[in-house]
Amino acid sequence: MAAEADEQVCKQVDHGIKLVFELLGKRWTGPIVAVLMERPVHFAALRRAIPGISERMLSDRLTELAASGLVVRRVHEGPPLRVSYGLTDAGRALEPALVELRKWAEAHLPPEEAVRCSEFGGA
Amino acid sequence: MAAEADEQVCKQVDHGIKLVFELLGKRWTGPIVAVLMERPVHFAALRRAIPGISERMLSDRLTELAASGLVVRRVHEGPPLRVSYGLTDAGRALEPALVELRKWAEAHLPPEEAVRCSEFGGA
Repeated sequence: MAAEADEQVCKQVDHGIKLVFELLGKRWTGPIVAVLMERPVHFAALRRAIPGISERMLSDRLTELAASGLVVRRVHEGPPLRVSYGLTDAGRALEPALVELRKWAEAHLPPEEAVRCSEFGGA
Repeated sequence: MAAEADEQVCKQVDHGIKLVFELLGKRWTGPIVAVLMERPVHFAALRRAIPGISERMLSDRLTELAASGLVVRRVHEGPPLRVSYGLTDAGRALEPALVELRKWAEAHLPPEEAVRCSEFGGA
């Protein structure tokens, strides 16, 4: 084996990077955190905000995020009884990383073809 | 339905965030990019750098990353013939995002229990 490869034997991926992608490297987890970064959201609205996610999948991801200390679940006694989800301080602290990921996506991934709803100013 | 939920109907997750997590939100993809951020690496060394990844999985992820324009595959005519993988400019542009993710992980995720190899200064 060549020396240049030997030199890499002990070079293992950063522990933090490994853990953060075990958490965020699951389908839907990143988009859920991104939506909650704006404000706490009810379950139904959160599901609408993420086209394609199933109710079961959203529920599972929220449970995982709560177990990891990123999301808190709040029950609003009704009637009607409603449940909303928001980020903890640890969850909100992901904002700089999401900002960088969004910037990268804008520069390096294909642009959106059509915007169904305008985020700013209007229906 | 309450007004606060109605207001959220049109609020959909950012297109860039959706795309970037379709790419990075797959097991191993983030760690692979993180390892390649240092320098181009041979397949075998890359596999050693990411404990737990199978040869097949690493191969599949590298193929996806190449198709997305983040990774380039280089064949070094031998003997022995060897293949290395490196990041494109687009791949390297993910560095600020990885830096933020690592900082977040260090502040909010459990620390490493034992370091098997020291990155700085020694075997």
